[in-house]
Amino acid sequence: MKQNQLLIPTLREAPADAEAASHKLMLRAGLIRQLASGVYTYLPLGFRVLKKVQEIVREEMDRAGAQELLLPAMQPAELWRESGRYDVYGPELIRLKDRHDREFALGPTHEEVITALVAGEVSSYRQLPLTLYQIQTKYRDERRPRFGLLRGREFLMKDAYSFDRSWEELDVTYRAMYEAYSRIFTRVGLNFRAVQADAGAIGGEGETHEFMALADIGEDTIVVSENGNYAANLEKAEMFWEEPAASDQEVPPMNRVHTPNAHSIDQLCAHFAAEASVFFKTLLYKVDDRPIAVVVRGDREVNETKVLNALGGERIELAEGAEVERLTGAAVGFAGPAGLSGVKLLVDREVQAMEAGIAGANETDYHAENVQPGRDFAADLVGDFRNAAEGDLSPDGSGPLKFYRGIEVGHVFKLGTKYSEKLGAGYLDEGGRRQAAIMGCYGIGISRILSAVVEQSHDANGIVWPAELAPAVVHIIPAAIKDEAQRNLAVELYERFRSAGIEALLDDRDERAGVKFKDADLIGIPYRIVVGREAAEGRVEFKRRADENKESLSVEEAFSQVTSGR
Amino acid sequence: MKQNQLLIPTLREAPADAEAASHKLMLRAGLIRQLASGVYTYLPLGFRVLKKVQEIVREEMDRAGAQELLLPAMQPAELWRESGRYDVYGPELIRLKDRHDREFALGPTHEEVITALVAGEVSSYRQLPLTLYQIQTKYRDERRPRFGLLRGREFLMKDAYSFDRSWEELDVTYRAMYEAYSRIFTRVGLNFRAVQADAGAIGGEGETHEFMALADIGEDTIVVSENGNYAANLEKAEMFWEEPAASDQEVPPMNRVHTPNAHSIDQLCAHFAAEASVFFKTLLYKVDDRPIAVVVRGDREVNETKVLNALGGERIELAEGAEVERLTGAAVGFAGPAGLSGVKLLVDREVQAMEAGIAGANETDYHAENVQPGRDFAADLVGDFRNAAEGDLSPDGSGPLKFYRGIEVGHVFKLGTKYSEKLGAGYLDEGGRRQAAIMGCYGIGISRILSAVVEQSHDANGIVWPAELAPAVVHIIPAAIKDEAQRNLAVELYERFRSAGIEALLDDRDERAGVKFKDADLIGIPYRIVVGREAAEGRVEFKRRADENKESLSVEEAFSQVTSGR
Repeated sequence: MKQNQLLIPTLREAPADAEAASHKLMLRAGLIRQLASGVYTYLPLGFRVLKKVQEIVREEMDRAGAQELLLPAMQPAELWRESGRYDVYGPELIRLKDRHDREFALGPTHEEVITALVAGEVSSYRQLPLTLYQIQTKYRDERRPRFGLLRGREFLMKDAYSFDRSWEELDVTYRAMYEAYSRIFTRVGLNFRAVQADAGAIGGEGETHEFMALADIGEDTIVVSENGNYAANLEKAEMFWEEPAASDQEVPPMNRVHTPNAHSIDQLCAHFAAEASVFFKTLLYKVDDRPIAVVVRGDREVNETKVLNALGGERIELAEGAEVERLTGAAVGFAGPAGLSGVKLLVDREVQAMEAGIAGANETDYHAENVQPGRDFAADLVGDFRNAAEGDLSPDGSGPLKFYRGIEVGHVFKLGTKYSEKLGAGYLDEGGRRQAAIMGCYGIGISRILSAVVEQSHDANGIVWPAELAPAVVHIIPAAIKDEAQRNLAVELYERFRSAGIEALLDDRDERAGVKFKDADLIGIPYRIVVGREAAEGRVEFKRRADENKESLSVEEAFSQVTSGR
Repeated sequence: MKQNQLLIPTLREAPADAEAASHKLMLRAGLIRQLASGVYTYLPLGFRVLKKVQEIVREEMDRAGAQELLLPAMQPAELWRESGRYDVYGPELIRLKDRHDREFALGPTHEEVITALVAGEVSSYRQLPLTLYQIQTKYRDERRPRFGLLRGREFLMKDAYSFDRSWEELDVTYRAMYEAYSRIFTRVGLNFRAVQADAGAIGGEGETHEFMALADIGEDTIVVSENGNYAANLEKAEMFWEEPAASDQEVPPMNRVHTPNAHSIDQLCAHFAAEASVFFKTLLYKVDDRPIAVVVRGDREVNETKVLNALGGERIELAEGAEVERLTGAAVGFAGPAGLSGVKLLVDREVQAMEAGIAGANETDYHAENVQPGRDFAADLVGDFRNAAEGDLSPDGSGPLKFYRGIEVGHVFKLGTKYSEKLGAGYLDEGGRRQAAIMGCYGIGISRILSAVVEQSHDANGIVWPAELAPAVVHIIPAAIKDEAQRNLAVELYERFRSAGIEALLDDRDERAGVKFKDADLIGIPYRIVVGREAAEGRVEFKRRADENKESLSVEEAFSQVTSGR
């Protein structure tokens, strides 16, 4: 590739609305351009990287025995009605009508389409197991597209779907996908973790893992034990728990305290001159439209997913102010477990194990001291209803938990029969009995990987591409293109790399050397060879993008550094 | 690839609504499935072929110096308003609104997006010429999707756009694309013609060619001279023309004839016992809402494109019955040039050169004999307003014209500055003057190629894939998979081909040999090796899909037939 002819519009400055480092650098290096919010063009260099990610994903999926196909983006609304998702998917689903007024959705995911396909084509146990995948453009009308390719509305995804005859067979498929994903994210050069995730959200059952690239801009919190054996996302993360020995200390009777203007835990700490951990925090929710209350320690956060799973519910949301006032008979900020009626009471096991605490009195401007679980209120359900916190011990005993931020780049999920039953994807078993296929689904955000990699792999001057993704292996820069010796040697080297099957980018532009070096740093190709003043002696300056050292090498040495380093 | 694990759902019968041979065979061979009208899934084998077409297109576009990128399918309506196409594109343009009620179009083509991109990134003559391309899913809400992949609503296209600094530079680019297209269609194995086409429709100016795969189901008529030097589509096709010597024969005066119930040329021929060629056929149109009349010989067809171009108009449609009656003062079927007023009169040169003819009398149930051009009516415009006909002579003197049916698989087009001016894609020339880029656009119907190839290359038993597109090179079929000698030899051969880098499909299904042979014929892989009774002696049956001969060969011979034949 010769840079003079290539469209690589580098920028000195990123647009003001680009926040994340990866977003800024991908714009500045001329990899992408925004067409509309969350909708991007991949320019030639960005497209090269995108293709490399696709090829890695394809190789590893094929190696794992999955078969590639291509499903349409235009999906008839009827299919989504059959699965029951058309009305619940919300505004993220882009809907349209064709010229005959028939409704379609632009696929954000393809469970419906693939399940209907398999329902039509598979009838016998002998045709299973089967894992199908595609690499395809997906559409999700995100409420808040951000960080460039990280959260877009039109993006490239690899989605795979497996059809097995038993949960045991699915275990094998799931493991194969898990391992393929681990290889993929290793090959693209990501620092990542596979973390346990909660299966409730998609509505399936069983195991699920998210593959998280570690990065401060990540939208997810992941919880990892000291030795790394335990890793989960915050929704799912559990912690070590041992029931404390029961105390036989007598607790004085409950005591009403006037606490005007003390609504928050911080205000209460100040008012009582006490630690947050001595309070009982009581939050009112609606779960599938029924009111419930959850009590956790004052220094803890309610984990809504755990609450929802404990109740087998589908939707959870905080109760509105008016509802809280109706239920507690008091202004917002004074709810407490003692004397609260008409709601199911969920008490975190940590609270239940306390001798006593301070809680809202269900009366405006009043709290209660010496509230004793069991004596002053009776839990309907005791369990783990809080988020893990840094310093908690890992449930498997592998040390204290630490928090990281992560970008979800992949997801593997045991779906079970949720879709196969609704859309009729089944088979006749050896005994001639009709069975529903046991499904799994497996996604990778192809375009998102670019952002995650750049986020992890850059410095102040630009991108530092990992070898397998770089748009070229070596960047050849004649310092002065008008100098004949430099130009000739640069072109000779370029042709030599090409003949050896090594992708080279030749900066044949008539620009100042400083401009070319700045662009080269931005673009981030692993090896840089500058053909400068020593060209006449057959010597060049050799530098790796990832380190600062520059070496003067003979052309031969430079060539073999690149070829051996691949 | 092992067939037992692959999703290749072959069918004995095609669905009743599949008309074209290619559509039937692609369904029957398990290559594609319909999800909705004009919306198809590519199953694993179909996807392999699709990928091969893409790779050929990519190689030839890269070789021609074009740069690949990827543009979004979701296009803001504003861009289409800037180009002026949003309101005129009609119901083929799929429109949608996002969650903020902003309007988008799903791209049927990308002139707007690419021109806006280049407008933002290119500013100097030094950045041009530039040719950009993408392989991408396109959306067109066809009124009548048909023939499987041939006319779909969601389909895969390669679209390229060039930006040059002069018409001369565009000539070079256009020629490079033309040649790349010729290589592509040759490599995919198509019998095709590049034909001159009319540039008016897209609204650009200058040269344009369509690449037509010859096929009876083709929706276009192409016109080719005997030696093939002249080729054009019917819209564009011209014919040799020499002004006949003027006659000094006296023509008797016009003569009104009562012709009740003679509306059509056929009825008139019967009524007057004359050839169709002695009549003047007069059709009334509206061009950009203004009425005009066109007169051609009774045995000719009006060419609306030629009419439109002669008038420099944008839209042409036949006048409605009521309008015809108002203009002629007679029932429909009795229009004629003599005495017709209030319309511009376009007379085909063939009519103008006739001594006299029979025409409608602009009076219900009457025609006129001895109507003489010049004497009885005055043309506003004389020219070539008719379709070419078989037997006409080619305009370049290369013999009589013949008609073929063609499937348009590619199109190259000199756009000029239509988009670059509206969307501001320009550059500063060497003298610092602002210039609009001169554009070209170049499309290939990637998915349509599959249909065209199958339409040309099949027999009664199935598809006969050309070598470069076949989903595999060799199909290995153990006649009885349970026979150990057969199975072992088949697997050994399969592994040997794989090691040699030759794609092999092994039919390891436990099916009757007849079923496997039928499927093999349907699928159409170029070489078939049946491992049967002679397996123990190391002999196999070798057959090419394209011919009937079966040979008994040693494994060694069969292997080298395939490897040498590639």
